[in-house]
Amino acid sequence: MSKFWSPLTASLEPYVPGEQPKDKAYIKLNTNENPYPPSPKAIAAMTAAINEDLRLYPDPNSEVLVQALAKKHGLAPQQVFVGNGSDEILAFAFASFFDPGKPVLFPDITYSFYKVYAKFYGITPKLIPLDEQFNINVDHYTGEHGGIVIPNPNAPTAIPLPLDDVRRLVESNPEQVVLIDEAYVDFGAESAAGLVHQYPNLLVVQTLSKSRSLAGLRVGFAFGSEELIEGLNRTKNSFNSYTLDRVALAGSVAAIEDHHYFAATTAKVVATRERVRARLQELGFTVTPSKANFVFISHPVIPAKRLFEVLREQGVLVRYFASPRIDNFLRVSIGTDEEMDSFLAAIEHNLAHPTS
Amino acid sequence: MSKFWSPLTASLEPYVPGEQPKDKAYIKLNTNENPYPPSPKAIAAMTAAINEDLRLYPDPNSEVLVQALAKKHGLAPQQVFVGNGSDEILAFAFASFFDPGKPVLFPDITYSFYKVYAKFYGITPKLIPLDEQFNINVDHYTGEHGGIVIPNPNAPTAIPLPLDDVRRLVESNPEQVVLIDEAYVDFGAESAAGLVHQYPNLLVVQTLSKSRSLAGLRVGFAFGSEELIEGLNRTKNSFNSYTLDRVALAGSVAAIEDHHYFAATTAKVVATRERVRARLQELGFTVTPSKANFVFISHPVIPAKRLFEVLREQGVLVRYFASPRIDNFLRVSIGTDEEMDSFLAAIEHNLAHPTS
Repeated sequence: MSKFWSPLTASLEPYVPGEQPKDKAYIKLNTNENPYPPSPKAIAAMTAAINEDLRLYPDPNSEVLVQALAKKHGLAPQQVFVGNGSDEILAFAFASFFDPGKPVLFPDITYSFYKVYAKFYGITPKLIPLDEQFNINVDHYTGEHGGIVIPNPNAPTAIPLPLDDVRRLVESNPEQVVLIDEAYVDFGAESAAGLVHQYPNLLVVQTLSKSRSLAGLRVGFAFGSEELIEGLNRTKNSFNSYTLDRVALAGSVAAIEDHHYFAATTAKVVATRERVRARLQELGFTVTPSKANFVFISHPVIPAKRLFEVLREQGVLVRYFASPRIDNFLRVSIGTDEEMDSFLAAIEHNLAHPTS
Repeated sequence: MSKFWSPLTASLEPYVPGEQPKDKAYIKLNTNENPYPPSPKAIAAMTAAINEDLRLYPDPNSEVLVQALAKKHGLAPQQVFVGNGSDEILAFAFASFFDPGKPVLFPDITYSFYKVYAKFYGITPKLIPLDEQFNINVDHYTGEHGGIVIPNPNAPTAIPLPLDDVRRLVESNPEQVVLIDEAYVDFGAESAAGLVHQYPNLLVVQTLSKSRSLAGLRVGFAFGSEELIEGLNRTKNSFNSYTLDRVALAGSVAAIEDHHYFAATTAKVVATRERVRARLQELGFTVTPSKANFVFISHPVIPAKRLFEVLREQGVLVRYFASPRIDNFLRVSIGTDEEMDSFLAAIEHNLAHPTS
């Protein structure tokens, strides 16, 4: 604590990102990165952007990227917003649409950063419990509130929300913004991007970090009605006019336009996930019905925390959350087939030698 | 206005960046970019960073860059903060150190974004007038307040503040954070970076955008006591854990370490500035004593707004501010010698043919 900190900063409990240990080479299945490299076209576009024009400011409106996204999704440029990772967009959205005087609703088990944003902006979160199977019941998102945030698929549960449920949620809360965080949507869930024409209160947030293999570049985007996008731009232009650099702009446009590569790598991740899920179930694990690039698993005999620790010793990093309701689960990112075979071998070894 | 906007967003008056017209090729002297390309070593480092590791998140703590800056400035890594451009760092600093209940002091003529940040965080700015020659008198920064922000050199006046004045300001306000924004310091002013060992309330903010020719990469940094840097990190980690991408990290480290190139290009800009200043004075202009990469000029006969417009017609973009006290001045970035010769020729033409 410091006498120089504002009351806000003194009150914060910052988000702690997943560990990135450097003591040895790990099979890294703990931060939901894509095991395949970015599109070769994105690599080429970024390489071409490393030139003397870097002395010049980027376009503060990121027009080339906004246009590429608008074209791909059949939207007007005024319905598209881009930012320095979807985390930044979420931060802008909490500021833009949620009134500190009213609670914001989100699931009790979800992306842990939502609580952090709420705290940062002085908003009280109201947590809506998932059911026993970790499903979201959209009919529970009612009553007096200032907005709703739901990831689809949810994290870390990996469970998707049917598009009809999203629609019902948006329709039954017409006076509040409903933010659907689609960070993982490209691995098999249904995107609500096509609904933004219909519903002025729907904001859909996506990212290049997962399905486009560009976590290292920091680019996210949002789709919504013109008034929502204008709201985000007002906030952004009061905070940082130039959030995306020239290299990120060039790489994102190429990544968005390389549909073939995207489809191929995404299909590979999905195929690996289905294979891993089947094998884990054979081994006695409970595996939630994942439509993300990770699985959420629990074993009836070996405690998750113990499994997390022995996997770590064996060079496999997965994610463990010491949180109510999910403290006997592990979140395991889907790597290459080879990486997942090593993971499965480590699991099988631990099941065969539970006390080793 | 939208019913979905938060009271905050509805109240904002966003900053408007300098114009970037695309209707023809301009000599661009309006956004204080460096006319020389980035360091070849930075270019090489960024090119090398365009690889498959972009699928992985960057280090959320940006350790390589923090270490490089700490080493260069003789600081501990705990005294260094980095962000997505110095604008982002300023936004974090306003949140971290300024209490909405107390006014923040800054000059009446200064970087226009300060007012925007204050508004965003609900802080009341108290503007301290520059004297008639646009100098800052640090003894006027007194009374009940929550903090002080001063650019050194000031913008758009280009006038530096002597280091002794900075020291007096910091010493006479020991209970509040004094933020010195050194975006332009490398062109001849005295940096206060060396004072952060001594004063726990001093925060010095710099950027790669100007003297390192990397406006297109979006990297800024700050030096301060450990408690101030921890405050910035608390805020940042409540907003966006990964503000700097892998390419920006690689390029920044190389740019920081290429002292020779930095010294050579900076010296060229300074030499050009001195030549341009001398010539403008011969032509009857008032030119403030600039230690920045721009000059701030006024002519006794031709109104600044008129000169701005005719220069624009002649393909030269400079910056005009329709603001009290400075609405008869132009801010002119220092370009290459060739660009400045074109600018001077256009000026001379206008003086010779005032009604053309």
